[in-house]
Amino acid sequence: MDASGNLRDIGEPEIDGAFLASGGVARVRDALERGDLPVVDAAGLRIGAPIARPGKVVCIGLNYRDHAAESGAEPPAEPVVFMKAANTVIGPYDEVLVPRDSVKTDWEVELAVVIGKRARYLDSREEALDVIAGYAISNDVSEREFQFERGGQWDKGKSCETFNPLGPWLVTADEAGDPQSLGLRLWVNGELRQNGDTKEMIFDVAEIVRYLSRFMVLEPGDVINTGTPAGVAMGIPGQPYLRAGDVMELEVDGLGRQRQTVGQA
Amino acid sequence: MDASGNLRDIGEPEIDGAFLASGGVARVRDALERGDLPVVDAAGLRIGAPIARPGKVVCIGLNYRDHAAESGAEPPAEPVVFMKAANTVIGPYDEVLVPRDSVKTDWEVELAVVIGKRARYLDSREEALDVIAGYAISNDVSEREFQFERGGQWDKGKSCETFNPLGPWLVTADEAGDPQSLGLRLWVNGELRQNGDTKEMIFDVAEIVRYLSRFMVLEPGDVINTGTPAGVAMGIPGQPYLRAGDVMELEVDGLGRQRQTVGQA
Repeated sequence: MDASGNLRDIGEPEIDGAFLASGGVARVRDALERGDLPVVDAAGLRIGAPIARPGKVVCIGLNYRDHAAESGAEPPAEPVVFMKAANTVIGPYDEVLVPRDSVKTDWEVELAVVIGKRARYLDSREEALDVIAGYAISNDVSEREFQFERGGQWDKGKSCETFNPLGPWLVTADEAGDPQSLGLRLWVNGELRQNGDTKEMIFDVAEIVRYLSRFMVLEPGDVINTGTPAGVAMGIPGQPYLRAGDVMELEVDGLGRQRQTVGQA
Repeated sequence: MDASGNLRDIGEPEIDGAFLASGGVARVRDALERGDLPVVDAAGLRIGAPIARPGKVVCIGLNYRDHAAESGAEPPAEPVVFMKAANTVIGPYDEVLVPRDSVKTDWEVELAVVIGKRARYLDSREEALDVIAGYAISNDVSEREFQFERGGQWDKGKSCETFNPLGPWLVTADEAGDPQSLGLRLWVNGELRQNGDTKEMIFDVAEIVRYLSRFMVLEPGDVINTGTPAGVAMGIPGQPYLRAGDVMELEVDGLGRQRQTVGQA
């Protein structure tokens, strides 16, 4: 989408790791400035995730004090790291499926970081910010019984089919502004459930990326979900977990808006 | 490699999910029978992993009673599931790097399952076995301090650079025979450290694949590390963790042999 709100055909097969690693963002920006990108009529088109086939989706747990508290956990001393299967990533308006035998499917609005350059053992916050291609809204959908009551590791409750709506846009780092002053909001059936701000993160984006690069090699196209503020179903009286027919809407300042209808697997 | 031990050029760009999903195994078998696959001289060639770019690497924890015991854990009531970053996969003879600031880098010989067909909500053991393309040796290299002493989730100690030597071969399911009667062995500097048998798994291969398909969509090229028997450094008196210069050798009956020299990141 351009600055006037027009969808444009960027003339690239995919926005993926190879696109980002090969200077795709600069290529598209130049083509846009030259007037080379035709406007597309969005009517009837499905909007996919703004990054195709991430190599991995890494998640930071309990990264907002209020969410740690509602989860019954202490604020962590260093980042809690887990993963989602990368094939959970779907478009921002796609259907989210409650898994079979699930009774505790929950939402989590998050700021997603998309990596643009290969990164290992980064030394500084500046180096960390330099490997970020951009940001997107992420819904880190979670099944709490699978996550907490079936053997101790969280990935089992994080990797179900359709569990990571992403997008609608990949907003480049230079256009997103300060990643630590973005409001995040999530509604279920029109009711505001989460209303946080990235300034409340325990570990900020630069620290997360620097920290992760000590434990794994980050690659172009990788996605990092940076944690969710309070207001998930697990932490609300009555625990109103998702059911087929529910509608989730998510918003992060400057990153657009998502909307998912919930179905049953 | 053919039945006579010759390496052959299979005439395909990669053995990956797309190859497996498109009937690549049958295609190569037919070409071999027609005599269409030229013998390759292996001298000086690097042998890569037998599956390129897995979509995900899923791991089963504490799946042998003796390893659960040496880890100080109860045998799990249902499979413990965690993940490794898929870019940890390297060839069977590639160098394994001790991460910076690591003092507890450990080995784990495992039977790896490679998925050949998309799978979700499998109903039976028969369906589970039917989606398996084949088997390989896997070294699920682990950093125990990162895994256990830095915030509770294991993935952080499992995803470091070079942490998953795989191969040398992908042995197809029909040729591997019964996956529950394979001896697994691992030596460090010539000393036998692990000596187990897949018949000792708590959850067997068919049950693991069926179980996982309830929690995530398995796709062609996905790798499942099915757990390690006793004998890891963490469980041995003196805890002889890996250091640069050490040599690991791994063997699983019918699946060949790996050898890695340890370096320092």
